[in-house]
Amino acid sequence: MSSPSDPSESGPKRSHGRKSVTLTAAPRDLMGEAERLSRAWQVQVITLLPQAFPGILGESLTGRALKDGLWQLETVDLRSHGIGKHRNVDDTPAGGGAGMVLRADVMGTAIEAAQRHSAPGSPLIYLSPRGRRFDQAMARDLAAGPGMTLICGRFEGLDERVIEHYGAIEVSLGDFVMTGGEIAAQAMIDAALRLRPGILGNEASAVEESHSSGLLEHPHYTRPAEWQGRTIPGVLMSGNHGEIARWRQAEAERLTRERRPDMWARRAATGSSED
Amino acid sequence: MSSPSDPSESGPKRSHGRKSVTLTAAPRDLMGEAERLSRAWQVQVITLLPQAFPGILGESLTGRALKDGLWQLETVDLRSHGIGKHRNVDDTPAGGGAGMVLRADVMGTAIEAAQRHSAPGSPLIYLSPRGRRFDQAMARDLAAGPGMTLICGRFEGLDERVIEHYGAIEVSLGDFVMTGGEIAAQAMIDAALRLRPGILGNEASAVEESHSSGLLEHPHYTRPAEWQGRTIPGVLMSGNHGEIARWRQAEAERLTRERRPDMWARRAATGSSED
Repeated sequence: MSSPSDPSESGPKRSHGRKSVTLTAAPRDLMGEAERLSRAWQVQVITLLPQAFPGILGESLTGRALKDGLWQLETVDLRSHGIGKHRNVDDTPAGGGAGMVLRADVMGTAIEAAQRHSAPGSPLIYLSPRGRRFDQAMARDLAAGPGMTLICGRFEGLDERVIEHYGAIEVSLGDFVMTGGEIAAQAMIDAALRLRPGILGNEASAVEESHSSGLLEHPHYTRPAEWQGRTIPGVLMSGNHGEIARWRQAEAERLTRERRPDMWARRAATGSSED
Repeated sequence: MSSPSDPSESGPKRSHGRKSVTLTAAPRDLMGEAERLSRAWQVQVITLLPQAFPGILGESLTGRALKDGLWQLETVDLRSHGIGKHRNVDDTPAGGGAGMVLRADVMGTAIEAAQRHSAPGSPLIYLSPRGRRFDQAMARDLAAGPGMTLICGRFEGLDERVIEHYGAIEVSLGDFVMTGGEIAAQAMIDAALRLRPGILGNEASAVEESHSSGLLEHPHYTRPAEWQGRTIPGVLMSGNHGEIARWRQAEAERLTRERRPDMWARRAATGSSED
């Protein structure tokens, strides 16, 4: 779906490396364009790999939502803002050292191209292992907003002056390094998007899960009742809803205590309790 | 490159939902198949969305490495192990509740299909927000091993008995929830792969970066010397390599102290020092 020859991805909307990523021409007869725009969550991604979008976001729940206009995705091809015949986007690090650094001037024009079309009030985020760690609270904040503009780094990183000049928020997916920001961008889009109304089939799903209540999620079981000599815990087969809820809560607490003493301590400190 | 109609992705290797994901028939005349296999890092991904692979991993450095045979990717289509005419893979949760749970028996046969072809000693990992948090140390361990088999969850999760029976290691990308494990799988593959020899253009790049030394990375600058009235810090233009190294170290320490007091405390506790 994201192959460069896909006719749904080129066309009149393409200009200066901006590309509206659509999946199909879904019927929108029942909804005016203005109404559709007003409720869609708008994501812009500045990247050297625009062909990698929507990628996996074009599948399953997020893909259906893209098709249905519940969110909009636009890529800004950093290369198209490059300098000279070869569209250079990077240069050697000032002070020496390995690798290449993305130029401030090139990224600056790409950011301005993106911001001309971004939803008012949407945050500018630079995906970088130096940033604040992404978590469920940030996903909720982003989901409650109008969308976001994401800057994907590559090579050694981005000239610091761009980050300062545009006040970009540095966000890290975690304490590890990837070849670029694109996978992190897709992770953040997915995590935020699924908290928006209409994306998950069952709205209850997003409430009862890990990290929404400061606890890890309890174990799940389903048919068959016995498999490889292992049975489903009896309480889950009892039909006693109170008992089941208590068992699940106790299991969630046990798992959190055992696996994530940091989360458990945070929960104890804030005095939160669920049930 | 990952479109389902790509002829390079189907062909005689396809059986029981296993699919070897290749990019092109790159010339391998200079290397025997046995030698190539012995040095390739082998990744298997069990997923309901095999079409989402290699996805972004087929681009740039990781894509070139896949083409060059430095790693191998195989997807196992969970659906093909499903039950009955409709290839069902999930059922309602025992004890009630929202969503659907992936069946132990279906996942079990998929895991066994994957393990028949996985490199000896490669870990079986279930991507789940309940798992141990992925970090650079884990990326290094995985990169040093023969590869990995990744289980991507969807819906509410996976029947607990499968995790226990096969001793799957639960790994979480971070304290947030996504619609499935596929993006997390891609993130882990990317982070580990780039630490393998021959993947990054410049091996020095992986050493001097965030999280490799327990510090966040220092700021980067490149041409132009002045942009939007902002200049590159003078020390970086001085040519004095000792001064530059000291400035970068001090900046890395400052950023870590300011942004990640937890990392800073851990570093102080272990008494590590760089330079």
